[in-house]
This record gives sequence, C-alpha cells and structure tokens, in this order.
Amino acid sequence: MQTQSSSAPRARRPNARDAKRAARTARSHSSVPFITRNIPLYEVLNNEGLELLEHNADTILEEIGIDFRDDPETIAILRAAGADAQGERVRFPRGMCRTIVSRSAPREFTQHARNPERSVIIGGARTVFAPAYGSPFVRSLDEGRRYARIEDFRNFVKLTYQSNALHHSGGTICEPVDLPVNKRHFDMVYSHMRWSDKPYMGSVTASERAEDTVEMTKILFGDQYLDPATGKPRTFVISLINANSPMTWDATMLGALKTYARANQATILTPFILAGAMSPVTVAGTVAQTLAEALAGMTVAQLVNPGAPVVLGSFASSLSMQSGAPTFGTPEPALVLYVMAQLARRLGVPFRSGGSLCGSKIADGQAAFESANTLLPTCMAGVNFVLHTAGWLEGGLTMGYEKFVMDADQAGMMHTLLAGVDLSENGQAMQAMRDVGPGKHYLGCAHTQANFETAFYRSPLADNNSFEQWEAEGSKDIAQRANTLWKRQLAEYEAPPIDPAVDEALLDYIQRRKASFPDSNV
Amino acid sequence: MQTQSSSAPRARRPNARDAKRAARTARSHSSVPFITRNIPLYEVLNNEGLELLEHNADTILEEIGIDFRDDPETIAILRAAGADAQGERVRFPRGMCRTIVSRSAPREFTQHARNPERSVIIGGARTVFAPAYGSPFVRSLDEGRRYARIEDFRNFVKLTYQSNALHHSGGTICEPVDLPVNKRHFDMVYSHMRWSDKPYMGSVTASERAEDTVEMTKILFGDQYLDPATGKPRTFVISLINANSPMTWDATMLGALKTYARANQATILTPFILAGAMSPVTVAGTVAQTLAEALAGMTVAQLVNPGAPVVLGSFASSLSMQSGAPTFGTPEPALVLYVMAQLARRLGVPFRSGGSLCGSKIADGQAAFESANTLLPTCMAGVNFVLHTAGWLEGGLTMGYEKFVMDADQAGMMHTLLAGVDLSENGQAMQAMRDVGPGKHYLGCAHTQANFETAFYRSPLADNNSFEQWEAEGSKDIAQRANTLWKRQLAEYEAPPIDPAVDEALLDYIQRRKASFPDSNV
Repeated sequence: MQTQSSSAPRARRPNARDAKRAARTARSHSSVPFITRNIPLYEVLNNEGLELLEHNADTILEEIGIDFRDDPETIAILRAAGADAQGERVRFPRGMCRTIVSRSAPREFTQHARNPERSVIIGGARTVFAPAYGSPFVRSLDEGRRYARIEDFRNFVKLTYQSNALHHSGGTICEPVDLPVNKRHFDMVYSHMRWSDKPYMGSVTASERAEDTVEMTKILFGDQYLDPATGKPRTFVISLINANSPMTWDATMLGALKTYARANQATILTPFILAGAMSPVTVAGTVAQTLAEALAGMTVAQLVNPGAPVVLGSFASSLSMQSGAPTFGTPEPALVLYVMAQLARRLGVPFRSGGSLCGSKIADGQAAFESANTLLPTCMAGVNFVLHTAGWLEGGLTMGYEKFVMDADQAGMMHTLLAGVDLSENGQAMQAMRDVGPGKHYLGCAHTQANFETAFYRSPLADNNSFEQWEAEGSKDIAQRANTLWKRQLAEYEAPPIDPAVDEALLDYIQRRKASFPDSNV
Repeated sequence: MQTQSSSAPRARRPNARDAKRAARTARSHSSVPFITRNIPLYEVLNNEGLELLEHNADTILEEIGIDFRDDPETIAILRAAGADAQGERVRFPRGMCRTIVSRSAPREFTQHARNPERSVIIGGARTVFAPAYGSPFVRSLDEGRRYARIEDFRNFVKLTYQSNALHHSGGTICEPVDLPVNKRHFDMVYSHMRWSDKPYMGSVTASERAEDTVEMTKILFGDQYLDPATGKPRTFVISLINANSPMTWDATMLGALKTYARANQATILTPFILAGAMSPVTVAGTVAQTLAEALAGMTVAQLVNPGAPVVLGSFASSLSMQSGAPTFGTPEPALVLYVMAQLARRLGVPFRSGGSLCGSKIADGQAAFESANTLLPTCMAGVNFVLHTAGWLEGGLTMGYEKFVMDADQAGMMHTLLAGVDLSENGQAMQAMRDVGPGKHYLGCAHTQANFETAFYRSPLADNNSFEQWEAEGSKDIAQRANTLWKRQLAEYEAPPIDPAVDEALLDYIQRRKASFPDSNV
C-alpha cells in the first residue's frame, strides 16, 4: 500500500498509467470511489512544534486526566492496562495511550459498501467525502427553515447517492424529528441501506442502537459479514463518537464505541470543540487538548478489541468572544486542522476533520466564504474522512437543500485540485504552442480539440454567461440555480437494486424490534 | 533581509519578540503595512517538474519566439543583447533571458508611500494586498450595474484607504468613463495621491501617460524623489504591463514599460491568459508559456535600466469549453498559481498573481466560493503583490461595492492565517487546562480573560447570531450587511493631510497638461 508523506506524491515525470489515473480522478470522478491525492500535503508545523504539542497532550493525560462518566467497565479496563483511576478521573502514564494505539490501530482500512465498487479505503493518501450530519432543521428556498422529517432524510440519501463528488452516504444526515427518538435509528440506517449503495454510518445514541446497526448490517451483508480468512467481521460501518470536551467521555458514547469496536466496526473519536468554551482560546491549546482526548478514546477501542479500526477526529470551531456564538471558516480552526492532520499521521491513524462548515443561516456569500475556507484546508491538509462535506448551514443546526448541491459542486472541484499537475507530453502541450504561435489563438487547434472533453472542471451551478444572457434568464443567484438542480436530481433518482429477500429481512427485523418497545416517544 | 523558503519560516520555539510580532500581524493588522508570512509556503511541484517547465519556457523563447509589435527600438535593444530578430519575431538563445533578469533584477524592493509608515516591501516573505483593477462597470445593491464614474473611483480609493486589510491603493480601480479617455489618467493618479496615503499604481495606456504619472510623482515627493546615496530615483510607482498572449508584447505596453523602467519605477510583467484561448488547455502548457512571455518582458526592463524593479506576473483563468466564457475559482488556475510562484522564487524576482477573482455578476455564493478558491491559494503560494484583492465581479468587468467590503474582510482573515500557530507559553495555554479541568468550561478562566481582546479574527460582516435574532433583524444576507458597512465607512471617511502647496502644484500640472490637449474625447 502506498503510504502518505509530504514528499512522496510530488510530481515525478509520470508514466502513461499515472496520467490515465490522474485524468480519471480529475475529470470523470464518477468512476472513483474515493480520492487518491497526487499533490503534496500542506504541513504548517515542523517536527519541533509537533513534538511540543505531543508532549503537552501527554502532560494533560498524565497530570490533569480524563473523566469517564458513569462507565465503571471502561474505567476497570483502563486501570487493568496501567492507568491510574481515582473515581471517574483517569490519569495515564506518559506515552501509555500512544503506545497502545500505535501498537494495534490500523494505519488504514477498507470500509466495505454493498456495491463493492463503492467500498472506500480510509487512511493514507485517500480522501473520502460524506455529507453533513446531525441537523434538526432543513432549509430550502421553497419552504424556508423547518424541522427535518424522514422524507428529508431519504431525499439527502438519494442526492448523496447521485453525487459523483460524495463517496459516502454519511449517517444522521438530518434528524427525522417526525419519528420517535428511540426508534428513528431503524429508519435512518434502513434508508442508507435501501436508497444508496455507498458505505454508511451507524447509530451512536445508545449502545443498543449501535447493536441494532450491527444486526441490520449482518442481515444486509449475510455471508460476506465474516472474513473467511480471519474469521473476524469485515468493517461495514463507521460511526461518530464525540467527546464531551473538555477532557470527558460519557457512558452513552463509550457504550456505542465498545459495541462497534468489539464488532470490528470503525469509530471516529472526535473531540467536538468550540474553542474558548470547551478548550483554550488558542490554536496550540486546542490542539493539545484535542489530541489528549482523542488518544484516550482510541485507547479504549484498542483495549476492548486490539486492531479495531479507529479514526482520529477533530472538530474545532472558534467562539465569538463578543456574542458567545460559534463561528466557522475563520483562520484559527484551519490552523487547528492543519496541525491535527500532521499529528494523526505521526500517530499512524486515519484522520477526520473539515467539510464545508459555516455559520450562515442561508446559502449566501457568507456560507460560501466560510465553507471554502474550511474545505480547501481540509483538502490541503490531507484529511482522510470528511464529514459535513455538503449541506451544512447555521453551525450544523440546519441541512440546506440548495447548500447541499452547491457544496457537492465544490467537492467535485477538489478531485481536480488533488489530481495535481499533469506533466505528461499532452500536459506540456509544446506542440500546441508550436502549432499556434505568437498572436494567434488556441480555440481550434488540434491539441485543444483533442482535450476538449476533459479540459477544465465543469461546474453545474456557476454562471459564466454574459451579463446580458444572465439578466435575460432572470438574474438568478447560485442558490436559485441550485434549487432547480436538486429538484431535477430527485426527479431523476433511481434506486440501486437490492435482493428482495434481504430487503424483507431488514424490514422484518425493524418491525420486530420496534414492536418490542413500550409505546413511548422518549 | 529575511529570504523566503519553504522551510525557513517553519515554527521554531518562538521568543517573546516573535510572539509579539505575530500577535500584531494576526489581530491588529491596522498596524502592519504588509503581511510578513510566518507559515510555510505550499509547493505543488518538485525540482524535477520545475526544471522541466523552465526547459519548456526556454524552448518557446528559442524555437517559437516572441513578437514585439510596432516597436523597432525594443527589437534593436534585444538584438544588441544577443537575440535573433526576424521582423517582429524575436528568438532568444537558451538561458539568455534568465541570465539577464537574474543578473540585475532585485529580489525584493521597497515601494515608498507618501506616508512612510505605509511603504511596502514587495518580495520575499511579504504579501501586499491591492484592490481590483480595470472594471468599466460598478455595481451596488442600490443602483445595480452601471458604468463607473470618477466619483466611484474616489469612493474606492477612500474605502481602500480605510481598510486595515488592504495595503496598497491600487491603480485603475474602475474606469471613470465620464471623463475623456486621453485625460482620465490625471484624475485617477491624482485621486490616489490626494485621497489616500498608501502606495499607488501608474497609468500604462500610453507612454506619455506613464510620463505624466512620473512627473506627478516628482511633484508629490519633491526632495525625496531622488535617493541622495545613489543619485537615482527611489521607487514610488508600480504599474501593470500586460502581454498580448500568446507570445506577443505590443508597443503601448512596451512604451509604458520602458518609461517606468528608465525612471527606476516598478513594473509587473503579466501574461493575461484565458487558458484554452490564449494558452493551451493544460496547466503545464499555460505555465511554460506564461514564464516565457514574462521572461521576455522582464528582459526588456533589465536591458533599458539594469536593476529596475520588476515583478513576475501571472493571471491565468480557464475558459469554459462549452460557452467560451472565462471561468474563475476553478482548480486549474490555482495549480497554475502555485507553480508560477515557485518559478518566480527560483528566478529570484517578486511574484504577482491571485486576488478574489470570480465570474459571478453579483456578490452571491458563486462569487464567494470562487473568490475564496483564488485568495486562499494566493496566500498559501506566497504571492508578493496581490492585485484584485477586493471588489472584483463578473470576470473583472464590474467593481462591486458590497463585494469590496466582503473581500476586504476575507483579506483581513488572511493576516491571521499567515501569522501561523503561536507556540509561546500563552499560546500553549497549559495553565488554562490545569485551571479548568475535565467537564468545566473556559469562558471565565484567567487565560480566556487575558486573551479576550485578541482571541480569534473578528469579521465585521459574518452573522453568527441565533436564527431568531437574525430573523428579527430582517433575515439579511451578507451582501445586505455589506451595503450598510461600505456606506458607513464612506460617511466616516477623513482625508489624510497633504501639504497645500504640493496639492496646488499637482492641480496646476494637471490643468496645464489637460489644456495642452486638442479638445477631443479620444
């Protein structure tokens, strides 16, 4: 397997196969299940700076400690491994967490999709784009902002399935608040399984819901669930396990974490931080705390099942010191992202961060500035798993229909950027310059004709027509054009095929499990 | 002087002075006349790739050649230096241009402002932001799109003067089409001199207009014009000299170039390229052609006055292969920008590119996505002189009032990004984490209080209030808030002081020169 480093993927004179692969990644990204980057990483700190922050993370783990709330089992596991537990406060000897994680956590792993062509490799030089996650509201130009419903959830699963730029179906794309809290995970997981064939995320809001996700996954994959070579489960699910920063993990998240890790399913250990409230107001402080918290979480996963796939997650926004509101797309979170990506590589685990984050309520210029200021660093830093790639509005409170297709367009562009500079003979185009010569134009020359189909990323949403034509077409902004696009996509949606027996078994499982609940909405 | 390299500015453990300077640059950028970057450069190609493209540029200069139109003087100068001229077609022996430019062009230089605190250093680790340039139209939410007037020109000079994020007054910020073509340069240059004290650009549309710019500069700076140590003029003006790509320089631009170079004033030699029409449809082809054209132009400057300050310019957008329209903010121009910045550093001259480019007609999400996708690469690549930092709409046809203040906000953020990670003891914030501990919050802790004023970039335009408050305030998008901001700024504008005798002398010069023209509008 190719390993990722800042120097390795720099352009050498590529051979024909390289050029073909780069062209495929850049232009027809319909055919790529994930991005394999072909440009160098951006690394903001040198080794000395990184060692300092690693030292500080170890100081936090050793001197301050991490609270593990309401979960004696986890505390017993950590104590047995050499940690010092006083009540719920656990302190780790310097280097303990790093040693445990480095020893068994995989550097990269495959998350299998029910369509094998859509399986993703998470880690190394790959980038996987997943939609936004967790919004209670949705927004469209037609209806404004309202609570999300399961119908919206299905719509976003379908739009994600249709997008060439998104590789992963995601998880709680929006909260279907029209369904009971204790049952809606069945409908969400089923939607991913039924209306898409891309890989998906599991429920984490209770360990039983994680178990339901695993059970449904066993039904969906049947014979394929176990790897005959190892006798262990293959990895089909990845799930988001958030810390209660600062320096706290709670029983709900730890319960889901242990369920998935024991089943060899992947987890993303993510300190979710609004700097200034849940971490210090500085980049270096936020980074050290994030690393300490994530290390402690990954340690639990590796102790309950050494080798279980884990991803180091970082979600850091800054707080407005005036209003106390979270802010997005500002420079400080970008710096946190760059440093955390470096630290994850040094630890040897895949990294999750970034996306198209914004604080704006609507798909306006603020949303676009902030989203681009997050997505570009995400790609330059080499993030492996990108949650919140498309749809995010209002600090994650709202999933936007127009914003979704606007963000997916931007994610499409990133395929071209990460493919880098084509230095093949065709890329150098010396014959074109000889053919055209001074003072002429290249519009009709042989080289332009030969590259017509593949030259330049094509946005389905940017309007580059003349002012007069744009005005004649109604002076629309990009959000209005996006409104037309997502509706057209949904109208054209066709579900991927599924074995009717499998579908019936899934629905049967859901019906049985739902029937076992007391008829409560809590 | 500090030289710029990809490894030098990486974070060592900074001393107190470093931290102080970084904090100043990051937060109170009112006090910095330009950015001194403190984060590594992003370099997309390795040496082998760069050598290949330099080789290709030399092949273009040697085998294909460059046309110098209607300018026998320039051709004679080039022939005398060793070039082969057949009619207007000039071919250069391999390495000739590079040798001439490297021998005498300064690696960096100071452009003096009439307020010495606003003088800029162009080159090395510095980035200087200037507003957009050249639009015949202006746009505001109040009036829509209309032809620009001298009143608009003055407004943008004032807004630029007021902006902490813009370091340079720019040049033809918009075309004052209410003034005669042959006289409007007087009013433009005077506006920069009178309504700002930041450095400015000169007229290039005829060599006599360049001479007028130099004469007015002599009046403005008086005794300071000549450097007593060398007896040569100091550099007070920088001007934009565009090639007629492909591979052509015309007499108008060459005339202005020679006028400025002989007066020791700075020039930016810029191939202005819509790839697919004026260069091949590939990144590597566009880069090689840009380098060849710029080298030829800089060679002329160094031959007429060895040591005259020159800047290697690159403006590359891609063409929609469907409509033939120029497109902006796409990945290919970003790759051109990254590579050209590397090539300029290898040549040893300052580099101009980038800005906040977009194709959108209005300050919507398209404009913001495209602008951010240009400005971030601009900053990561280490561009020294950034034209079109603020206001650009519609491929440069329109200067937007709202877009201007939105872009200036983004340029402000870049100050914080380029200041990098503060690894001082305060930045590490270990005591804050000890003070707060697991499960608590940082809002009131001593470290947060101490850093309250300087923590996090503050946008004057982003709305991060609650949905309810945003709705109560009229559900405004960022363009509407920007409309309020630029009007408030203009209302609060106060002109910088000027010696009344100098002002009178400038107005007298303009009156005499204008009176000498036949009363024609051509």
